Amino acid sequence: MSTNSQSIEAILQADSIWFNANIITFANDRPYGTLENAYLAVKQNAIVAIGKLDSETLSCIEQSNAQCTDLQQRWISPGLIDCHTHIVYGGNRSAEFEQRLQGVSYEEIAKRGGGILSTVNATRAATHEELLESAMKRAQDLLDQGVTTFEVKSGYGLDAATEIKMLEVVKQLQHALPATIVPTFLGAHAVPPEYKGKADEYIDYLCDVLLPDIKKRELADTVDAFCETIGFSYEQVEKLFKSAQQLGMKVKLHAEQLSDQQGTQLATRYSALSVDHLEYLSNEGINALSNSETVAVLLPAAFYFLRETKLPPIQALREQQVPIALATDCNPGSSPCTSILLILNMACTLFQMTPEEALRGVTINAAKALGLLDQVGTIEVGKHADFAVWDIQQPADLSYAIGANPCVGVVHQGKLVLDKLF
Amino acid sequence: MSTNSQSIEAILQADSIWFNANIITFANDRPYGTLENAYLAVKQNAIVAIGKLDSETLSCIEQSNAQCTDLQQRWISPGLIDCHTHIVYGGNRSAEFEQRLQGVSYEEIAKRGGGILSTVNATRAATHEELLESAMKRAQDLLDQGVTTFEVKSGYGLDAATEIKMLEVVKQLQHALPATIVPTFLGAHAVPPEYKGKADEYIDYLCDVLLPDIKKRELADTVDAFCETIGFSYEQVEKLFKSAQQLGMKVKLHAEQLSDQQGTQLATRYSALSVDHLEYLSNEGINALSNSETVAVLLPAAFYFLRETKLPPIQALREQQVPIALATDCNPGSSPCTSILLILNMACTLFQMTPEEALRGVTINAAKALGLLDQVGTIEVGKHADFAVWDIQQPADLSYAIGANPCVGVVHQGKLVLDKLF
Ligand SMILES: [Zn+2]
Ligand SMILES: [Zn+2]
Repeated sequence: MSTNSQSIEAILQADSIWFNANIITFANDRPYGTLENAYLAVKQNAIVAIGKLDSETLSCIEQSNAQCTDLQQRWISPGLIDCHTHIVYGGNRSAEFEQRLQGVSYEEIAKRGGGILSTVNATRAATHEELLESAMKRAQDLLDQGVTTFEVKSGYGLDAATEIKMLEVVKQLQHALPATIVPTFLGAHAVPPEYKGKADEYIDYLCDVLLPDIKKRELADTVDAFCETIGFSYEQVEKLFKSAQQLGMKVKLHAEQLSDQQGTQLATRYSALSVDHLEYLSNEGINALSNSETVAVLLPAAFYFLRETKLPPIQALREQQVPIALATDCNPGSSPCTSILLILNMACTLFQMTPEEALRGVTINAAKALGLLDQVGTIEVGKHADFAVWDIQQPADLSYAIGANPCVGVVHQGKLVLDKLF
Repeated sequence: MSTNSQSIEAILQADSIWFNANIITFANDRPYGTLENAYLAVKQNAIVAIGKLDSETLSCIEQSNAQCTDLQQRWISPGLIDCHTHIVYGGNRSAEFEQRLQGVSYEEIAKRGGGILSTVNATRAATHEELLESAMKRAQDLLDQGVTTFEVKSGYGLDAATEIKMLEVVKQLQHALPATIVPTFLGAHAVPPEYKGKADEYIDYLCDVLLPDIKKRELADTVDAFCETIGFSYEQVEKLFKSAQQLGMKVKLHAEQLSDQQGTQLATRYSALSVDHLEYLSNEGINALSNSETVAVLLPAAFYFLRETKLPPIQALREQQVPIALATDCNPGSSPCTSILLILNMACTLFQMTPEEALRGVTINAAKALGLLDQVGTIEVGKHADFAVWDIQQPADLSYAIGANPCVGVVHQGKLVLDKLF
């Protein structure tokens, strides 16, 4: 059977067909992998056909019993993917934000109970319901802008009960929201107050007790850590990664955000899915990435919010063909950002990435950063029918506009979950 | 009659009452002019009473025939004001944005017809309907975030027909949208291609022909100009301001954006409503402002989008008690931004303004910049009933969040025009 007759067969048996669309596929060699004046056919949760809309296909669509939507030249992109978030947390850090701008010093704010430990305390004190309710609001912002897959990290508990509570809330989010949600265990986010000055002991506790428990409860299968002078050392992270590996868990790392700790080289040795932040990434780190499958995840809103001036080495990553993903890093301390579209603009404006690189960063490369590229991140036959519909003139509009939201439709696993189409 | 019995009287005769609210008034000496656990009474288009919710007031509200809304401790602020926009224009500059990031030089882009003249050409070619439709989308973004008053400039026509067309579209916007819309004539935005090398002649044309025509048609009563090496000189702007003054029109100025042209000193001599941009404002300019009624309007999204590194002199403006307003500067070339809330965050993050200064910048000081402080900008008896309702914990949340929109209600001149309250 030819490809075309396979497509005809698939169209005739489809549940829904979207046509007269311009489709950003990221699955061919054209800019954005664009198919103009095209159609997309969906059966159950999967894409079953995609192609140019010729007269044969159009007459076939007219005969089909599928739900057919004429998109009148609107654009389709893969559902957006936010591959690095901390959207589950208790409390609010806007008072601390205000105090800092009023001239109160970091030391004084820490004395008043500010900083990450204030979020840890608030998250420990919060109920499941409170955490779920506040995370739902933040997640809804993402979904409204075309996100169909996002990651959520634990890491504001730093004790068994709260880390488990956070990951259970992620499970509840997964049940409550029409999106694919990927949990990550970030027990090694900071040294908890109970282990002050005893980071090695905390790492032992994570390796010996909490990590196996998280694995047994099936709350996460990826382990993340913060490798930094104010976080955990190279050796401590390596110990954690070894335990993760022994348990069959994947790893990723907050690396080279404030200084070069060679975390990237470490992470690639453990086949990390991604290394994230990377402002202080060295040439050795870039070489390690280029010889690995690890994705470089850049977080421009954290760069912006922290008034960082050292740029991640975009041009070198580009030259070494390291896949670059982008994410909101949504968190209360360094990136209170829930707009994935603004991340595109910041990547262009602050990091001088091109609009196409930026959009790859929240689709195909973000899928790779989550180990989900076989399922999502591009528009291809066989992948999940996860896509967004945009009221735009051309793909660059998504990166160019600041504060607009041209998303008029979202399909997650074949279901229309946001409908502002007509 | 005591103030209290006046309030009781006003409550009994009100059309609508909003109670159990925390109100940011900017009309008393407390931070944000806050009244916590308060009520607000509206009759027709005006605020008729405001105060703390004591038991006497509550029983009075219960007896009132007004439409009463229990805001359950949500926050009210004055309706937000965007005092500097260029939201009426034709065409799209995202392709140019993309080309620049792909490495195409400014010269090459200009050769391909890019830059401001591409917007001029597209605006000249566009119909009223096309201009209205695209401006409506941008305006709706503003309205969705609590904006009840905004300014729109002409300046992409640079000929009589198109400048008039743009200002007529602003009038149409005013009829179509539940907001107060203030037109400004910006014929002196750039030298039109027809007058290339003859800027003096163009200024003469504006003074002798177009300005009197705009005035006669009642399309605008404020005149703006771009005082810059790539715009118009001090002398040219002064000539224009003299004509405006003779016609009884007010003035404002795009000043010291790219270099110090002493435009601020000039503008204050003509009692300008505002001077806008100000990255290159000198000490002399600051002194001129402090001895004037002119408002300093800062445009952080243009600063961000142009990757400007020279900050406006915030601390000196603060010390000299110059009122600072903030605006989107929404325009296709240097600030494709339609989010007033993001402007608050950028003012804090990029300019280190406090959240309270930022919110004053889009309320009380923006009202002053438009010459409308007697009508809007604060929550006070006698002013227009223009306000926004926010689902936030504290006022600083409005500046802290990046990409969220906690606006759940908007009242314009007494009418509930956005209702996501419950
Ligand atoms: Zn993070
Ligand atoms: Zn402007």
